[in-house]
Amino acid sequence: MLAASALTGRAAAQGAGLSESNPASSAVAGSIDSDGKVPFHGVHQAGIDTPQQTHVLFASFDLVTDKVPDIVQLLRDWTEAAARMTAGQTAEALTPDPSVPPADSGEAIGLGPRRLTLTFGFGPGLFEKDGKDRYGLRARRPAALVDLPRFNGDQLDPGHTGGDLCVQACADDSAVAFHAIRQLARMAAPNDAANGYGGKQAGVADPYDAKPGVAVLRWIQAGFLPDSPPDETPRNLLGFKDGTQNPGSPYPAERADGKLIGNGSFADVVWVGGEGPAWMQNGSYLVVRRIRIALQHWDNVELDFQEQVIGRKKLSGAPLTGGGEFSPLDLDAADKDGNPVIGDNAHVRLGAASSNGGARILRRGYSYNDGLAMIAERWPPWRQGLEYEAGLLFIAYQRDPRTGFIKIFEKMSKLDLLNQFTTHIGSGVFACPGGIGKDEFVGQKLFQTV
Amino acid sequence: MLAASALTGRAAAQGAGLSESNPASSAVAGSIDSDGKVPFHGVHQAGIDTPQQTHVLFASFDLVTDKVPDIVQLLRDWTEAAARMTAGQTAEALTPDPSVPPADSGEAIGLGPRRLTLTFGFGPGLFEKDGKDRYGLRARRPAALVDLPRFNGDQLDPGHTGGDLCVQACADDSAVAFHAIRQLARMAAPNDAANGYGGKQAGVADPYDAKPGVAVLRWIQAGFLPDSPPDETPRNLLGFKDGTQNPGSPYPAERADGKLIGNGSFADVVWVGGEGPAWMQNGSYLVVRRIRIALQHWDNVELDFQEQVIGRKKLSGAPLTGGGEFSPLDLDAADKDGNPVIGDNAHVRLGAASSNGGARILRRGYSYNDGLAMIAERWPPWRQGLEYEAGLLFIAYQRDPRTGFIKIFEKMSKLDLLNQFTTHIGSGVFACPGGIGKDEFVGQKLFQTV
Repeated sequence: MLAASALTGRAAAQGAGLSESNPASSAVAGSIDSDGKVPFHGVHQAGIDTPQQTHVLFASFDLVTDKVPDIVQLLRDWTEAAARMTAGQTAEALTPDPSVPPADSGEAIGLGPRRLTLTFGFGPGLFEKDGKDRYGLRARRPAALVDLPRFNGDQLDPGHTGGDLCVQACADDSAVAFHAIRQLARMAAPNDAANGYGGKQAGVADPYDAKPGVAVLRWIQAGFLPDSPPDETPRNLLGFKDGTQNPGSPYPAERADGKLIGNGSFADVVWVGGEGPAWMQNGSYLVVRRIRIALQHWDNVELDFQEQVIGRKKLSGAPLTGGGEFSPLDLDAADKDGNPVIGDNAHVRLGAASSNGGARILRRGYSYNDGLAMIAERWPPWRQGLEYEAGLLFIAYQRDPRTGFIKIFEKMSKLDLLNQFTTHIGSGVFACPGGIGKDEFVGQKLFQTV
Repeated sequence: MLAASALTGRAAAQGAGLSESNPASSAVAGSIDSDGKVPFHGVHQAGIDTPQQTHVLFASFDLVTDKVPDIVQLLRDWTEAAARMTAGQTAEALTPDPSVPPADSGEAIGLGPRRLTLTFGFGPGLFEKDGKDRYGLRARRPAALVDLPRFNGDQLDPGHTGGDLCVQACADDSAVAFHAIRQLARMAAPNDAANGYGGKQAGVADPYDAKPGVAVLRWIQAGFLPDSPPDETPRNLLGFKDGTQNPGSPYPAERADGKLIGNGSFADVVWVGGEGPAWMQNGSYLVVRRIRIALQHWDNVELDFQEQVIGRKKLSGAPLTGGGEFSPLDLDAADKDGNPVIGDNAHVRLGAASSNGGARILRRGYSYNDGLAMIAERWPPWRQGLEYEAGLLFIAYQRDPRTGFIKIFEKMSKLDLLNQFTTHIGSGVFACPGGIGKDEFVGQKLFQTV
């Protein structure tokens, strides 16, 4: 899934921002004001077709309340705070009262919006957990919001997997993304009452006055992209351009069986249409995978083997079948011995739409670097020792995960040559509702008649 | 150490870049070319008085060779690669030969210098380890390169502490900093031979052809700063401006015993002079501390208590004794009951030069965010649970740690009100040699006559 199916979100979304904007909407998510503000309200949630910012902080929450009105109130609070923060304001208005904790932790004051987007999603646990219909929402679970199957090679750490709610915070400043998640997490569990916090003391507001906790952080993951020139596809930690065939690409094609196959539009690939429940219309399904890459191992692999693994040239990003970065893949081309030029197990072949019954996704991933960890590799040379805990925070959006990520990755997880360098160690799937109107809260239509 | 003694490195160094430049040097470290290149060669190593970039990746290495020439060769290789990478080039020239691993992992191609600086330091272990003079350098260990004492409250994780060599990579792009450390680490242990790597296989270069490993990564830590306007002091995760009194500040003063005391110049505070060995002249000593902040706890503390803890106003950064951010601290001022306005245990008082016999440091820290971890707090309310593994990657430069960080932190570690929110969980001390001449390698004078 690393370099396969994709024009980077950045470039793709820039194209898409023009082609997908709804002229009937006065605020189109994805367009950018000159002061670095990405509109929060619109037909779609921002942060999906928004050109990729340089930083992400992905946050997953567990719901700890048993009351639906708590969740509704939290989503109202989050929506209001998100509208403020994406406009460069504090999460709540600051008050001059020094005898209470500050309404905002303050570290982003003066930084401006920095293209902050906050994209909200609902995990399977909102609808059903451990077989229980805990909020009366089970019947409203969209058919497309399936639990991800166990894929070949999965080594999922529960501490980086799942969650009932998620927030994808993207910005051009790490501090702005961190600040946003910190405020939202605090609003969800003001004094972390649900998490064991308690006891009055000097200098600490009385936790018994606090609202009970509604949701607590389950995991967070920071990521970064190189700040590449806008017309260049950013490279991931494999050193390859990551994303050349996303929907919206100006050169969206691959060649198979003698035909050119396009990469689809945002409406085809990303946005839920009339097939979903009303609250998901114009929304999308998010799949997140924390993929560690054995970088030390990769760095010792010959260039031509790296290129065979991916199916593209490293420097130019061109397919091994020739041309430039945006030339079509020719999956039928063979060398003089009759072997395919792009190998049977090459990453781009296995990720190609034509290899997967037309399945496509929007890739919006980031590199991550969490330092070093004691790691045992899964493949020769079976090295173990301190290695980089680094790789790809893969984030994909699609109209239906069953015909998107799941379809593509089922085969890829078994056959991709790249698997000997990658391990999927975190995972999640979330339904991201459609865009948020001026007087709405996120997901309002889901809760309206509960 | 969080907000005490400091005009941010950014602002301080901008002042210093003008005042400290050596007119005899054609390339002054700290000045910036218009293409984002910070000169690598100069009187001082870059990355100390360079205005702070938005990202750091700090790397600590263990030496695994027993041969001095290996170390010299590594330092030659590192110097050459650093000169290239800080100019926006690959670590080594790329060759078109596809049958060998690429000379550079490639992910920074096309990004440009992004103000990358690489600052090298030597830890105590280069001179002596486990009581052994392993490289014949024991007699050359500078008196100032002491092992840090155990401070009150230290909870140091060996996995984030110490090291024989360090590299501080700073850049305005996370990917550029990561790329630089990755290349240097690979040059130190080409096939990780010293770390158990071995065995020929398809697609992997023959490790038996490789140079033996010289040094392996011990720990790395990424950090970030908000990209604040150049005339504003960035805030740390406490939400307070961090660094207002660094050497070089335009308003470098505190008031005590009725006098104004300045904050010293770079020559006074940062650069080693004639007192050190020749190889340390124009160098500096680096102290790094990984300081976790109990952010959930802090966020539930009343504003006025936060301000008493620090001794400054949160929004403006002004001392509690009045004025603006750069007004002098008045450590003698008392309220109507005779109590000090800046409390006895306030962070700024304990960090002030006048409270420490004139001790001063240059702060060049970054915030860090490593996700969530299961943490038991050390103070009321003794909360335990999933909390942010986040805080401050404190980095300080000084002429002598004995009269710098150690002097200041000995008292501070016992008395600072801020300690109930902070835990020092990583540490290191390194001697950063003077600047690197055009045909020199870093630390050359140390090795020249061994």
